[in-house]
Amino acid sequence: MRGAVLYGPRDVRIDDRPDPRIVDPTDAIIRLSATCICGSDLWPYRGLNAGSGPAPMGHEYCGIVEEVGRAVTSIKPGQFVIGSFAASDNTCPHCLAGYQTSCAHRQWITGAQAPILRVPMADGTLVATQELPSAREVPSFLAVSDVLGTGWFAADAARVKPGATVVVVGDGAVGLLGVLSAKQMGAERIIAMSRHEARQALARAFGATDIVIERGEEGVERVKELTRGVGADSVLECVGTRESMMQAIHSTRPGGSISYVGVPHGVELDGAQLFYTHVHLHGGPAPVRRYLPALIQLVQNGTVDPGKVFDLELPLEQAAEGYRAMDERRAIKTLLRP
Amino acid sequence: MRGAVLYGPRDVRIDDRPDPRIVDPTDAIIRLSATCICGSDLWPYRGLNAGSGPAPMGHEYCGIVEEVGRAVTSIKPGQFVIGSFAASDNTCPHCLAGYQTSCAHRQWITGAQAPILRVPMADGTLVATQELPSAREVPSFLAVSDVLGTGWFAADAARVKPGATVVVVGDGAVGLLGVLSAKQMGAERIIAMSRHEARQALARAFGATDIVIERGEEGVERVKELTRGVGADSVLECVGTRESMMQAIHSTRPGGSISYVGVPHGVELDGAQLFYTHVHLHGGPAPVRRYLPALIQLVQNGTVDPGKVFDLELPLEQAAEGYRAMDERRAIKTLLRP
Repeated sequence: MRGAVLYGPRDVRIDDRPDPRIVDPTDAIIRLSATCICGSDLWPYRGLNAGSGPAPMGHEYCGIVEEVGRAVTSIKPGQFVIGSFAASDNTCPHCLAGYQTSCAHRQWITGAQAPILRVPMADGTLVATQELPSAREVPSFLAVSDVLGTGWFAADAARVKPGATVVVVGDGAVGLLGVLSAKQMGAERIIAMSRHEARQALARAFGATDIVIERGEEGVERVKELTRGVGADSVLECVGTRESMMQAIHSTRPGGSISYVGVPHGVELDGAQLFYTHVHLHGGPAPVRRYLPALIQLVQNGTVDPGKVFDLELPLEQAAEGYRAMDERRAIKTLLRP
Repeated sequence: MRGAVLYGPRDVRIDDRPDPRIVDPTDAIIRLSATCICGSDLWPYRGLNAGSGPAPMGHEYCGIVEEVGRAVTSIKPGQFVIGSFAASDNTCPHCLAGYQTSCAHRQWITGAQAPILRVPMADGTLVATQELPSAREVPSFLAVSDVLGTGWFAADAARVKPGATVVVVGDGAVGLLGVLSAKQMGAERIIAMSRHEARQALARAFGATDIVIERGEEGVERVKELTRGVGADSVLECVGTRESMMQAIHSTRPGGSISYVGVPHGVELDGAQLFYTHVHLHGGPAPVRRYLPALIQLVQNGTVDPGKVFDLELPLEQAAEGYRAMDERRAIKTLLRP
């Protein structure tokens, strides 16, 4: 099969790769209906925390089950399934506590920018829809696999409550779907920090009530103005840089909550400084598996349309252009058709 | 009057100081029934974050109201009152959210190691008991003023729930009262980390079910053994050093909660490391005022006896010896009789 492989900074190629096949009896093989490029793929694409040697890319997926190992009991060939970027057994204490991305047997998914994918621990990782989706629904189900799941975790981890004032730092796909999630959780005021017109429009479509274009200290000042000097109840930090984390911390009211869902890069927190802010802090790799059944339901019944974050659609063969468009912020998120 | 003043590292003296008097119309003047030395007083005593020049010491207090300013409405002369180490208006948005130690008009109390104290914003800061306490009750009411309130916040901020497994890092008075608080909140298992026999005994008396004497990585290993490799649901970090914070973080299960209630000294948190632990983090100067009414009730009806943390009682004139005993860990906490 043909799949996206990262060779080095800004060097993504479509290579011939061996067709995935069942390795462990708990595996499933899926023919992907669609796949996509993640904001987190841009870190290695830009040469940050890249491994050595060519790396198959992609960890967001949905599609039709082709084959399952002999130990798989709940997932069956022919089903349309969605999984998270981390395979999990969904039975260990961490999974049962809802932290499947810390599963005792966690395996990170990779190589999903391809037509076929092997998913380990299929029973624990995958959730099937009740019916096969229409072509129109596929992008939204694909979004559930990572960006919606992560945006939802961001809102949940920041303890968004009905009536709350929420700030979302970051206007990438995760931040935008953090806006959508906060809206679903009943936030009254959602302040999206963005200086990009198309993203501002999507943020508003998803439920943002205010847009703040300022950054850093000025951004914090603007949030304080909008909240009568108090700060926000919940702040979703959806970038992962030191600047965005500081902006989040200083935009939060004492006793308020900050979530952080992108791998922090260069973020050092001073304990004494954090102490006097009185904030709650929670984050980590989003346990998307926890939310899959509920989010699939929300897409299925048309309550949410997270597929709107895909503003560029390309054949898999043009993945390199998909990366470039996201790197240059010409696209919010690129959907790839295998 | 005579009051404790810190002149420099390990140099506490009892000096003649002017009698406090009403300055603002919202003040109250209290004749203290007892006062004490705090673990946090040991930081400047040891030469860490000391200010310049002699500093009146003490911020824990309870006693009889002698006089109130003309704007004070709820507190009256003759009442026995308890207050927090931070004066607060109890009406600003931060106070109303329960974070009185982030009050918009916060004033840190100091100079309470003395017979008389001025308390600003008396209506917002002080809570009166229904009756005058017996001499036997006074130490427990004094403990409510800071160490019990802080231990309670530690348990609350670490989200201790009925049936939970809790770890308490630190066997100072706050840690020990964190044990008591976790017990009151229904924790099933309370692991106290202590290598000091008298403190272990008090921890057990307050509800600890297990004692871990190991520290650092070994301490973490021991907690993991005691929790079948999972880690604790709630961890109370009651020391404030880098070592204790790391021990807390690595003792917590993914999705579990850590509180930290002592001013962190030299604590730097690496964002990416914290990210993958999946912990909740919350702390800060304990908003003791939030808990005063409930804790006073618990002492009044004899449910708890936090005064047991005072294992040394001295006349105020011997405050220097009280500091020495705590510095050398000969005493858990020193009560001073003005």
